[in-house]
Amino acid sequence: MATTNRSTLGAHIPQVTARAKVLGRAVYAGDIKVAGMLHGKVLRSPYPHARIVSIDTSEALALPGVKAVVTGMDTPRAMWGVHRKERRILAEGVVRFAGEEVAAVAATTEEIARDALDLIRVEYEELPAILTPDEALDEEAPGVHPGRDNVAHEIRFERGDVEAGFASAHVVHEATYETHAQYPGYLEPMGTVASIDPEGRLVVWTSTQSVTQARLRLAAALERPVSSIRVRQATTGGGFGGKLVEDANNLVAGLLAVKTGRPVRVVNNRLEDFQAACSSVPERITLRLGMDRDGLIVAKDVRIVAECGAYCGLASEVMHVSAMRSDNMHRNPNVRSHATLVYTHTPPHGAFRGFGGTQMLFALNSHIHTMAGMLGLDPVDIHKRNAIGQGEVSVHGWQIGSTGLVECIDQATEAIGWQAKRAAARSSTGPKRRGIGMAAAMHVSGNRTIGNWDGSTVVVKINEDGRVFIQSGECDMGQGAMTMLSQVVAHELDLPLAHVHVLPPDTDTSPIAIGSLASRVTIAGGNAAIVAARMARDKLFALASRQWSVPVEQLRIGDGAVFLADAPDRRATIAELARLHVWRDGGEGIQVSGSWDAKTVMHDDKVYGNIAPAYSFAAQAVEVEVDTETGQVTVLDSYVADDCGKALNPVAIHGQTNGATVQAFGWALYEQMQLDGGRLMNGNFADYTMPTADAVPMLRGGFVESNDPNGPYGAKGASETAILPGAPAIANAVFDAVGVRITALPITPEKVLAALRARREQEKRDA
Amino acid sequence: MATTNRSTLGAHIPQVTARAKVLGRAVYAGDIKVAGMLHGKVLRSPYPHARIVSIDTSEALALPGVKAVVTGMDTPRAMWGVHRKERRILAEGVVRFAGEEVAAVAATTEEIARDALDLIRVEYEELPAILTPDEALDEEAPGVHPGRDNVAHEIRFERGDVEAGFASAHVVHEATYETHAQYPGYLEPMGTVASIDPEGRLVVWTSTQSVTQARLRLAAALERPVSSIRVRQATTGGGFGGKLVEDANNLVAGLLAVKTGRPVRVVNNRLEDFQAACSSVPERITLRLGMDRDGLIVAKDVRIVAECGAYCGLASEVMHVSAMRSDNMHRNPNVRSHATLVYTHTPPHGAFRGFGGTQMLFALNSHIHTMAGMLGLDPVDIHKRNAIGQGEVSVHGWQIGSTGLVECIDQATEAIGWQAKRAAARSSTGPKRRGIGMAAAMHVSGNRTIGNWDGSTVVVKINEDGRVFIQSGECDMGQGAMTMLSQVVAHELDLPLAHVHVLPPDTDTSPIAIGSLASRVTIAGGNAAIVAARMARDKLFALASRQWSVPVEQLRIGDGAVFLADAPDRRATIAELARLHVWRDGGEGIQVSGSWDAKTVMHDDKVYGNIAPAYSFAAQAVEVEVDTETGQVTVLDSYVADDCGKALNPVAIHGQTNGATVQAFGWALYEQMQLDGGRLMNGNFADYTMPTADAVPMLRGGFVESNDPNGPYGAKGASETAILPGAPAIANAVFDAVGVRITALPITPEKVLAALRARREQEKRDA
Repeated sequence: MATTNRSTLGAHIPQVTARAKVLGRAVYAGDIKVAGMLHGKVLRSPYPHARIVSIDTSEALALPGVKAVVTGMDTPRAMWGVHRKERRILAEGVVRFAGEEVAAVAATTEEIARDALDLIRVEYEELPAILTPDEALDEEAPGVHPGRDNVAHEIRFERGDVEAGFASAHVVHEATYETHAQYPGYLEPMGTVASIDPEGRLVVWTSTQSVTQARLRLAAALERPVSSIRVRQATTGGGFGGKLVEDANNLVAGLLAVKTGRPVRVVNNRLEDFQAACSSVPERITLRLGMDRDGLIVAKDVRIVAECGAYCGLASEVMHVSAMRSDNMHRNPNVRSHATLVYTHTPPHGAFRGFGGTQMLFALNSHIHTMAGMLGLDPVDIHKRNAIGQGEVSVHGWQIGSTGLVECIDQATEAIGWQAKRAAARSSTGPKRRGIGMAAAMHVSGNRTIGNWDGSTVVVKINEDGRVFIQSGECDMGQGAMTMLSQVVAHELDLPLAHVHVLPPDTDTSPIAIGSLASRVTIAGGNAAIVAARMARDKLFALASRQWSVPVEQLRIGDGAVFLADAPDRRATIAELARLHVWRDGGEGIQVSGSWDAKTVMHDDKVYGNIAPAYSFAAQAVEVEVDTETGQVTVLDSYVADDCGKALNPVAIHGQTNGATVQAFGWALYEQMQLDGGRLMNGNFADYTMPTADAVPMLRGGFVESNDPNGPYGAKGASETAILPGAPAIANAVFDAVGVRITALPITPEKVLAALRARREQEKRDA
Repeated sequence: MATTNRSTLGAHIPQVTARAKVLGRAVYAGDIKVAGMLHGKVLRSPYPHARIVSIDTSEALALPGVKAVVTGMDTPRAMWGVHRKERRILAEGVVRFAGEEVAAVAATTEEIARDALDLIRVEYEELPAILTPDEALDEEAPGVHPGRDNVAHEIRFERGDVEAGFASAHVVHEATYETHAQYPGYLEPMGTVASIDPEGRLVVWTSTQSVTQARLRLAAALERPVSSIRVRQATTGGGFGGKLVEDANNLVAGLLAVKTGRPVRVVNNRLEDFQAACSSVPERITLRLGMDRDGLIVAKDVRIVAECGAYCGLASEVMHVSAMRSDNMHRNPNVRSHATLVYTHTPPHGAFRGFGGTQMLFALNSHIHTMAGMLGLDPVDIHKRNAIGQGEVSVHGWQIGSTGLVECIDQATEAIGWQAKRAAARSSTGPKRRGIGMAAAMHVSGNRTIGNWDGSTVVVKINEDGRVFIQSGECDMGQGAMTMLSQVVAHELDLPLAHVHVLPPDTDTSPIAIGSLASRVTIAGGNAAIVAARMARDKLFALASRQWSVPVEQLRIGDGAVFLADAPDRRATIAELARLHVWRDGGEGIQVSGSWDAKTVMHDDKVYGNIAPAYSFAAQAVEVEVDTETGQVTVLDSYVADDCGKALNPVAIHGQTNGATVQAFGWALYEQMQLDGGRLMNGNFADYTMPTADAVPMLRGGFVESNDPNGPYGAKGASETAILPGAPAIANAVFDAVGVRITALPITPEKVLAALRARREQEKRDA
């Protein structure tokens, strides 16, 4: 409909939030200063499992500057939790992991609050702790939660005829893979300022991925009506799943504000954030695949033992994704899963970028490479042979509206020089060996799992100067939601990007939104923005049509004006029409609300049917160098091909892809949460080794624009898919380089050396 | 539609803002503290007319703590003003009144800012000042504004045959009345906090009667796009017209924020507020009325000379009201007006509660009493005989949908004991004489004068707990707009008042609204709230209808639930339906926008036609005691009968009526802005004597519920009409007590004594 070419769709543009961020003007929760503000700090359990015998807060309360000390006795009786309501804001009676919130202090300075923590006397009776899933699943093991066994969640399904599939297979291979927990590692730790407004409502300004869900959870945990709480999103410096619904940071801040009646800021330092955040779900995956002679997968059987830690949170959903999502990437009709989520007395695990896909895709991609070797095939051919096609319906009923999987595989492997380098690697000599590997992945764009709605609502308001405000409750956590919404509305109304402005999410004034999860914002929010922008345009057209007595069909919008298709000089600027819309008989401002919901289904216990409006695909190829003397793996080159449907803002997607790639490198090679007796030993960035610039090569990548029929202008989610193939691509490259298969992440030098030693010993024994 | 009886409509209820206010929690502009906030102060001209030769700000800038000093040279070139764009934020070149803004300072404390003002060296060349309308209208007088004469605005109209009317009259009387300027006298002086947000937008949090108009004016004066400005209403402690569109307070704050890039608070102290505020428009009214033998008015001729001071502002609109509004109260078809608004070098005048009605109704009611004496009639009878009736169309085309004027007159005069006391007063002796007087008045409820829209838009949002948020841009300045909106929506949805919450006006998120003026909020905002609430209810009904497969017609709402009329046990709470509305396939939050616009006309130069959807009427009767030795007038009793259509909240309307009555007493008897050589001499509450409790008797009053067909539940505006009859009722009572007619307000002891002396001398001469 737009007629000039000012649209930024598909152009490399800076994020609309960039200027405020690089100038240091963006207001993160930790930047907020409110008159009379107190500072909150949390006392955490040093024991993985203990009875709280007594808590004496008198000394802490007596410290000058301390305004409140709260314990489990002072908190509402309500339990919170995403599915299972089993957690209190502050523990009462029992602590179930080292780091669990036991007490909180509000004081006039952060230092006093910290000092006050030292003055709280907690008498614990230490109890035996269950620290591994195997201990937890022992029939004799006591329940982490009283009166229940330690299985938090269990999934079983079978489709097709798995045994017949295996029987028909040319080769069947089974192996067990172990994946570990990754800390989200956002630059900005969790932070919240909570206060009581003049009407007594609780106002919570927080770093979050979903204001709507934060409000629901605050209401539940604090036992207050939803409407008595206002949640505003502060500028959010990364989330990666960790700021979705599982942290207690804003609950503690809310509790302290309610108790003191004053504004309270609670900002985690890095150690606190390590202790408070949910890390990703560790899974032990036993995978059995059957393939025919050509590498076609004919049967899959998977057993998963996943660990949620002390509280279930979203880990059950994560495990669900591990159990079934990657099945939909292939044509194999025979699949069986048995997945068990287990409680232990360890810090909780939950949502993390990739959301269960990373775990299973590490196993699956490793397995395919291994079986390619067994069959004497190129794994690339196996991937492409099995890849589901556009228009096909997967084993679980997922409708593949678009897929660029094969193109992604081709693009990535060609970029890395697959054919030439595979040959070269095999013939390399010396202590440093090079190898290449690849992996393929799929992800959802949206996911109908919350209530029975996976849509979004966007409000578009045209001001009297012709500029536009956009209101959405979908949160920008750095991924670019605000930029995407701006681009869409600016495109539809053919306005410069600077003339549209996205207001930050605020539960009082924004439409209800599910939030930034499951790569849903571009598809759901973007489509809603199209709907709303067109409604606003129609209001302009209706007015112009009436003013000029011409049919709406003859009107066009472009260059900041509405004009007649046949007589472009007959025009009125959007500003003029917006003013006229208000200041006329029967007037009102142009403010419209557009909603869009995916045509998908919510799973019942059959877990069958199309849950997402679109599916993203990616492939990655890497080249590594393995130092056989030290075991060190270095990534020399990496190329990610991302099927994001349509790259609305290529530079933003490259940023997401590169960030995901590096996060995958960290998971694959470096990062590991070290627990000793249930206690985290490396909760800081010196000891928890995220990849730094020297560990990352110049990252390369490209898009495959598969143009999804449900996507806004064809676009699909583009923030998560790229994290999925990194770890298995590296594992496969390590195997390619030195012939050892590391099945337990991370691929540390110690494991590589041990594997090389074991292989040499095996070779000796074989010789 | 509501079926239970929890509605507060018509009940005495506290304002929804009361709790926050009495607990000291309400946040007025002066309460706002923002990190890094500066304090602004304004340097004002000491001369009524002078050339600014030079301004040296170097010393002020050098004072530690001073962050900016701005003068007319630093401000945008744009002129601002309501109709005539003729004012700068800070004067450049010339000052035109004593008190005009010349420079402004932003400093780290208010004290430093004040000290810095003393260090600004302004060299003025004083110029001859025009201080009275008569001087201004002298043909030789130079123009207050260069290149123009001193007539800011002129109105002339005639309808019917005025000369024929006078020719047919039994008695014709002409007199001249003088009315003076009244300072709005709100408890909270003007205050603003302005800041630049992370995106560079200007955020202005201010005490105002209209956020929409404040934003438009800021945009014009600061030469910024409307969308780059966000105006939020702080809790507002009274406005009375003074916080509508004519003060520079938020412009100065905005300018200093732009200049410094930091938050700046500018809160007037009382003297500054006296200097900065527009006071009401002084008018000299020469009124000529012809009446037939029975007191029926057959012709009216009026000449008005009104003074706007140095800048026109809204004074032209005020004078317009004086010139014609009261004509519509009577059946007289022959009216002529000639009104002239004049510039002088004095502080500007403008909007004030009653908006021109007070001035003309003082003259008219005084005149009717005098002529009643000439005809030997009771003025009450003259008022009732002339009163326009329901369903009639006035001389100016106003359609009287409802009127309780005659009932108001009866109620007020009966309450005061008219018949008995009139007789008694005439026979009283001794130095203290008692007398009674009455007056009648009309006012608009809404007024189509801005653009061509006099409507309102209300957003209603039903949250997942069944509680409701209301968004409106109409400002509560203390008159109770938020309470009224809450009552309407709670009534429509049959919810407890505590379950609805009005969000404060904010141009970013509220619908566009004209604001609190012309007694328009109850009729426009109230009707829009009904529309929006019913739209929200229809969404609940549509959902229940679909869920239960029943026709919408069978559904009822009541007691927080939707249920079947025939089977009330078949029910779902509003909360359940609201949640279902979101969390279903195709879901979204219930958030609707309802608009209502009056079926009225915008005047062209014929100034004919129905400008308001409804008209309010009032009558007041007072008893006074006049001390003939001191001239002191004491009001002993007062009764105001108010035709507000329907008293939605009687206690709130009583509060408004009583406040208006006291403000009228102040204007009639005590308050006077004392200028000496153009300079205000009494800009404080010690010397500017507003009535205090000892000057006010127990105020009495009652309603006449005329049930207007256009009003929400019959209601009309109820905040302004009651100020109109006070002054003439007192003047008439003084005449009744001691036989002297004071035609120039205020009725000071000096004037009474002088009049008594003059009468005695006249009597001596006559004897």
